[in-house]
This record gives sequence, C-alpha cells and structure tokens, in this order.
Amino acid sequence: MTSGILLLLLLGVCLAATYDERYLEVPLDHFSISKSTFKLRYLVYEQDYVKGGPTFFYCGNEADVKVFVENTGFLFDIAPVFNALVVFAEHRYYGASLPFAASTFSNAANMRYLTTSQALADFVLVIDQITGKYYRTMLTDDTYPVVAFGGSYGGMLAAWLRMKYPHAVIGAVASSAPVLQHQVPCYLFYQVVTNSFAKYDNCSAWIGESWRLLRNLSNSDSGKRNISAIFKLCKPLKTELDLSKMIDWLGDVYVDMAMVNYPYPTNFVTELPAHPVKAFCDKMRSFVKVNETAGLLDALAEALQVYTNATGRKSCNRYDTTPNDPVQYAWDYQACVELVMPMCSTERDMFEEATWDLGNYSKECYGRYGVGSPRPDSINLKYGGGNLRYASNILFTNGLMDPWSSGGVLSNISETVLSILIPDAVHHYDLRGAHATDSHDVIEARNAIVSTIKKWLRL
Amino acid sequence: MTSGILLLLLLGVCLAATYDERYLEVPLDHFSISKSTFKLRYLVYEQDYVKGGPTFFYCGNEADVKVFVENTGFLFDIAPVFNALVVFAEHRYYGASLPFAASTFSNAANMRYLTTSQALADFVLVIDQITGKYYRTMLTDDTYPVVAFGGSYGGMLAAWLRMKYPHAVIGAVASSAPVLQHQVPCYLFYQVVTNSFAKYDNCSAWIGESWRLLRNLSNSDSGKRNISAIFKLCKPLKTELDLSKMIDWLGDVYVDMAMVNYPYPTNFVTELPAHPVKAFCDKMRSFVKVNETAGLLDALAEALQVYTNATGRKSCNRYDTTPNDPVQYAWDYQACVELVMPMCSTERDMFEEATWDLGNYSKECYGRYGVGSPRPDSINLKYGGGNLRYASNILFTNGLMDPWSSGGVLSNISETVLSILIPDAVHHYDLRGAHATDSHDVIEARNAIVSTIKKWLRL
Repeated sequence: MTSGILLLLLLGVCLAATYDERYLEVPLDHFSISKSTFKLRYLVYEQDYVKGGPTFFYCGNEADVKVFVENTGFLFDIAPVFNALVVFAEHRYYGASLPFAASTFSNAANMRYLTTSQALADFVLVIDQITGKYYRTMLTDDTYPVVAFGGSYGGMLAAWLRMKYPHAVIGAVASSAPVLQHQVPCYLFYQVVTNSFAKYDNCSAWIGESWRLLRNLSNSDSGKRNISAIFKLCKPLKTELDLSKMIDWLGDVYVDMAMVNYPYPTNFVTELPAHPVKAFCDKMRSFVKVNETAGLLDALAEALQVYTNATGRKSCNRYDTTPNDPVQYAWDYQACVELVMPMCSTERDMFEEATWDLGNYSKECYGRYGVGSPRPDSINLKYGGGNLRYASNILFTNGLMDPWSSGGVLSNISETVLSILIPDAVHHYDLRGAHATDSHDVIEARNAIVSTIKKWLRL
Repeated sequence: MTSGILLLLLLGVCLAATYDERYLEVPLDHFSISKSTFKLRYLVYEQDYVKGGPTFFYCGNEADVKVFVENTGFLFDIAPVFNALVVFAEHRYYGASLPFAASTFSNAANMRYLTTSQALADFVLVIDQITGKYYRTMLTDDTYPVVAFGGSYGGMLAAWLRMKYPHAVIGAVASSAPVLQHQVPCYLFYQVVTNSFAKYDNCSAWIGESWRLLRNLSNSDSGKRNISAIFKLCKPLKTELDLSKMIDWLGDVYVDMAMVNYPYPTNFVTELPAHPVKAFCDKMRSFVKVNETAGLLDALAEALQVYTNATGRKSCNRYDTTPNDPVQYAWDYQACVELVMPMCSTERDMFEEATWDLGNYSKECYGRYGVGSPRPDSINLKYGGGNLRYASNILFTNGLMDPWSSGGVLSNISETVLSILIPDAVHHYDLRGAHATDSHDVIEARNAIVSTIKKWLRL
C-alpha cells in the first residue's frame, strides 16, 4: 500500500483556450510575521467575462494548474451563461509556483510552508487582486461575486475556503472532495475500487487471486524472472522489496482506472480508452483460460496494457515510483504531515489484505521528510471534520463510482450545505466539459450546480 | 500620539477563587510544519462545574491571564446558573506563556509567532484538551458546549474564534471588541474620549487649552523647568522629544481614565477612585482660577493625581514609557505588524491635532522591530472586517462611553450575530462582576447575555 495515493496523478497538457498568465507576490508565511514572498501563478480567462459578471475561481490542487484547466471544462461551458471571469489559481509548491525555485524540495526547512492553511491564504490574496482589478471594490464590499470551485483535493480546498473565508467567496462547488477521508473507516476506499471491478464478470476475483500467484511465483529466482518477463518490467524483480513495490504499483493502477473510468477516451492521468475498467476486464476475460488460475498472470499482463500502454509505444513497465517526481514528492509530503488519510483493505476486497498502522506510516514519513504524521483527527481541529452545520453555501458533489466518494459528504447538512450524488459517475466527472456520452445523471447534476450558483448569486 | 495604545494596561493582581493552573504543549507554529512547541498556560475553575454543564472559555488577551480572571467576575457570577466549568487561557507571549522563555523578546525571529492566527489555534487545542478531559468527546461531536468569552482584544479573539472555528465553540460573547477599529474613521476613538470629559463643565476645554500652554511654556529652559516642577516629573524635560513624550503620556492618561471610568474604585489599570473622569474634572474645577488660563497647568497637575497618585505614595511621575515592559513591548509589536489601528485627532477633540500617517507609523515600527506595518485593511483579508453576515452565534457588547466602542459592531448583523449597546458603560464593564452601583442598563445587558447563551445551549 503506497503512502500517499495522489488524488489525481496527471499528465502534461496543451491548452486550447486563450488565457492571461499572471503572477502574484504572496507571503511565504501568512500566519507568522515574515518578509519572505514568492510568486504564485494564476491564469485568467476573460473571453466570456462581461462587466457585472461573477468570477469563477478554481482552487488549484496537486499539479501544474494547467492540468486542471484542461480537465475542468465545466467552468468554461457555463461561463457564458453567467458572463463569468474564469480564474485558475495554482497551488503553492506545484507547477510554476515554487517558493524556493530549484531548491524548493531540497530540504525540510523549504518544504514546511506546504500546508492547506497557507494555500488557502494564497487564494484569498489572488481573489483580492482579481476583485480589485475587475470590480474595484474591497473584499468587505457586498459586491464581490466570486464562486470557488475545486475537484478532488482542490474541492477540499474550495469547501475550506468558503468555511474559513466566507467574505472572500460567496459559495463553493466542491466536487469529489474527500473532506472526511481521515475519519471514515479505512477500508471504504478500496471497497469502492473493488465494486468498480466487480461489475464485470469475475474481474475483481481474478485480481484478488493474482496476489497469491505473484507471491508464490516470486519465491524462486526463476519465478521472479518469470514475473519480470510476463509484466515486461523495466527493472527485473530481485528482492522482496521489489515485489512489494510491484504489487503497490498494480494496486495503484487499479485505483487509477477506477477513478478515471470515464465513458470516453481521456488523458487525465494517462492515455486511456473509454471505460478503462471495462476495457481491462473485457481483455482479461478474453485471455483467461478455462482453467482460470493457469494463465491468469499472462492475462493480467495483457489486460494491463489498457492502462500502461494505450499508445502501444511503451517497451517496459516501471513499477518503482520515481522519487524525483516533484508532484509525487510534494503530495506525499502533504499526505504525511497534514492530510493523513488512513487506508486499509480487508479480505472482502480484491486487494491484498493490509492494516492501517499510523505508527509505521509516521515512521516512514519521518524517514523521508524528517517529520512524522500528526494524529489523523488533527485536521478536524482545523476544519471541523463532519461538523459542517455552521458552514453555508457549499455544494458537495460525489460520483458514487469514485473511490474518493468514500470520504465525501454524502448527504445534505443544512439548507445551504448540500450534497449531490451521481450514481454512475467517477472522480471529478461533473467538473469535466460536456460530452456526447454524458449520462442523464451527470447532466442533471451539472444543471443542479448551475441552479445552486444562481441562487448564491441571486440570479 | 503613542503607537500602540494598549487596549488594557494592567496592574498585578491577587486571585481569590481556587483554580488549577495547567500547561498545554502547543506547536510554536500551527500553520507550517514544525516540531517546536512551548507550554501555554490555562487556569481551570471547577467549583461550579457539574457534569453536563458547559465550559466558559475566556480568550486571554495582552497581559498575564490572571489579570483577566480578576476583572471578569461576570463569568464566575453566572457559572453556577449553568453548572459551568470556567477556563481562562493565556495568550501566547504574555504572562507565563512565553515561547522562548527569557529570550522571547530578544529578537525578531523569536517574536514572529506572535499573531492572532497562532493565538486562536492555541485556544482550539486548549479547548480540545478540556473537552477531552471533561466530556470525553471529540470536537466533531455535537456535545461540546463551549462558550467563548473575551473582552477588549480578547473579545476580538472570541469573535474570530467562533468565525474561524465554529466547531470548537458554540458561540462567542465579545465585549468591548473593536474588530472594526482598523477601518473606521481614525478620529472616532479620541472623539469618544473627548465626549467622556465634555460631560463635566469645561473639563475637555481645559484639557484642550493645556497643550498650547505647555508648548508655549516649554519654549524656554526655565519654562521646561517650570513644567517639570508643576507635574513632578521624575525626569525633568530637556528636549522637544521629552515634551512630546510627556504630552503622549498625558493623552494616554485621559484615554485610560475614559476607558475605566467605572462607578466604583478599581485597580484594573491602576489604583483609581469611583468615576475617575468625574473625580479628575471635579478636582480641576476646584483648582481652576477665575482667570482660567493662569493657573490651568497647576490645576491639571493637581487633578492628575486622581490617576497618578491615588495612594498618595508616589513621589514623581514617569512620562517616558518603560521600553522594557514585556507586555507593552509585545502589544506594540502586535499593533505594528498585524493589528494596525489608525488613530488621529481633529480640532474638535480635546487632544492636540494629529494626523494618521501609515508610512511614518510603519517606519517607526520598522525601527523598533525590523518589520513594517501591513496596509490596515489586510486584517480584513483574514477576518472579513464588517462582513459578518456568514458568521453565527456572536454577541457583541459595547459600552457607548468606552473609547473602543468606536471600532465595535454597534448594530445587529443577523439573527445570530447580535449587538448590545450599553449607553452608560465603559470598557469591559459588562464582563466585570456584579456590583451594588451597577446601572440598570448594565444589569439588563448582562441578563441579555445570559439569555443568549441559554439559547445557544438550547436551555
């Protein structure tokens, strides 16, 4: 089980819409007195803005902000309806918003300002800058129609932005935001992933069986060579640690496929066909022999290409995560020092059984970053956990086929803190641009979001 | 005009009630990742607590927390009505809650964690500790009846605590809390002080006249000696700077008298008789000659003893503030780097005319602390300024004779963010213990506070 599952693990992108790339000088530390600042990037899309319209403010999450522009088409789809200005703010320590440039990740002292509180305070300054420019009003004024949006971790930030700074945004649309992940039972996440694969024949059972086969085969050196060949591993298995890493990698692949199981081809996390889970399971079925166990690993390796090699250009598979990838490194840091999300799997899941052990987790974190993990409920002290009854104007949306829905707000809290459930949707689906294959449920959810925003804006 | 007028300038105290003095290890920095901690003091009063009762949590402000215990008798008066536990938490950098012990104030690096955000986060941890101990519930639970209280700057903290951490306290009583001081017209504060003295004959006019006399007389060395003798100054006036300091000192004395113009003798800021403003003005009247100008300074010096020498034991007056007083030093730092409160006086006031100049103010701050002042509205970015419509369960109380009411919330904001005005009350009056001379208005205000708390607690 990897330490920090990226809420979104993302590819590079190319942006179609015209934008203005700006930078705002923000304090490195908003909560203690310091003179240090750095440049935070934000992107401004003016094409649909008409004076008097609101600002749609996307709270950037754990990647280059352009990735979210490319995968949050919903904002651009509805901007003309509202005459809205669209702004995407980058999260500090990602993309081009690195506080210490090339040495941002080189030591613990430089990393320590990577927290949700600091990120939210950055966003408030960008909003102040934007409203100053477009509306020439103070934040204290009544006429600052800024609506926060965010998906995944960005959705958590959008909800928290509204909770902590209700004077800065009139409401928040928080899509696929696992704000309760730290406090729900640790097995829920992998349960949803399992459900996703269980819809297709024996698919989850095949995967469930594969771990035992891998463990058995790997007991001998020839078996290890065998596995390495079957799965075309770039670095052949040598040690038990290698095997563990390979098993973690497979688990992450299944999680990713479940998260972005969109009904059309995407390249959000990697190049993928429509319905990747179905494509994977279909392929497995076609390869699995009558005697299921015999050719199971070969079938698995073949089917995996749906995820690992959609382009057909990849010669081998890397199972060890690249420790130098700054996005993964930064996110793992966050998952270690603040956003601890306990995860485990039981014998009912298609994953290897794994318990949650905060002590071990914290020790691993300490080894990597020189800082251990807080108790998981410490995030409650900051944001209140499930106690949202004093918040207002937050719309949580969750696709029930999204593993992260396990930590979502799945029912209405009050008249203004609402939850929309989208039965067939996966991660971040409702924030994507409209598509011919969108289900009725997704279209309805998007309409409900628009109605709710209109209510906030008194339109 | 002094840079940072202490909201409360306080004497030592002796505590009557029995309390438990405790310390909680809190992070030095709640918002960035750090392993440093220090011990925050809090006092617990159990005598009226009955299981099931709420906690009354006083948000300590800029002094030793015991000062507030001694001058916030209201909490102890009403604790038996609610079976309440009473807790007074100390503000970091004051009293016994010094993060770096003896070297807390020795350099800018050690001072930088003295901010409102850090103080509020400290309080949340103390509340978590208290509720864990007494209620054995999580903060996320619905049953954590903690009511925040605070007076003056502590009242600002109580209101902000409820705004930022509504899951931690069910409501906040914010007495004499100038949460808008940074954004109201800068002359309001001294206007209220002037009104306070104007109630008694020519008292404010006499004071208004005194500045010119002092300036004129001080033009010669013999005049300076004269003034020094009349006012029994410990350090005779030598320079223009000395005179400025002496004038600032006189201004501060008038402000203090107006703030704590209680109808009975107190020792909140210093040993004072009942109605000190009246006592001062009465004394002036009895000394002022028929030709008012001639003996005005002598009369003033005599009358000043109401404030400076109620005990009759003082041999001389210190007009230069003691720069080594840690309370004044810490508060000035806060007034410089975060809580900038623009103040000025006009020709309508009894003070010397003075303009507000952020540039100069900031330069002075830079000279003292190595950090300049932010723009005054930057506090709005954090707390929303007057935009309180999304807050809930906050009760602002203001005495209209309190100079700090100039920055108070003086009207209801919503059904749950309420304002009580007490026409004849001064600073922090309603939070004081019941007294035989309490006016009908004050008693009524206290009853309204009790009713409001009962509503919050659904009693």
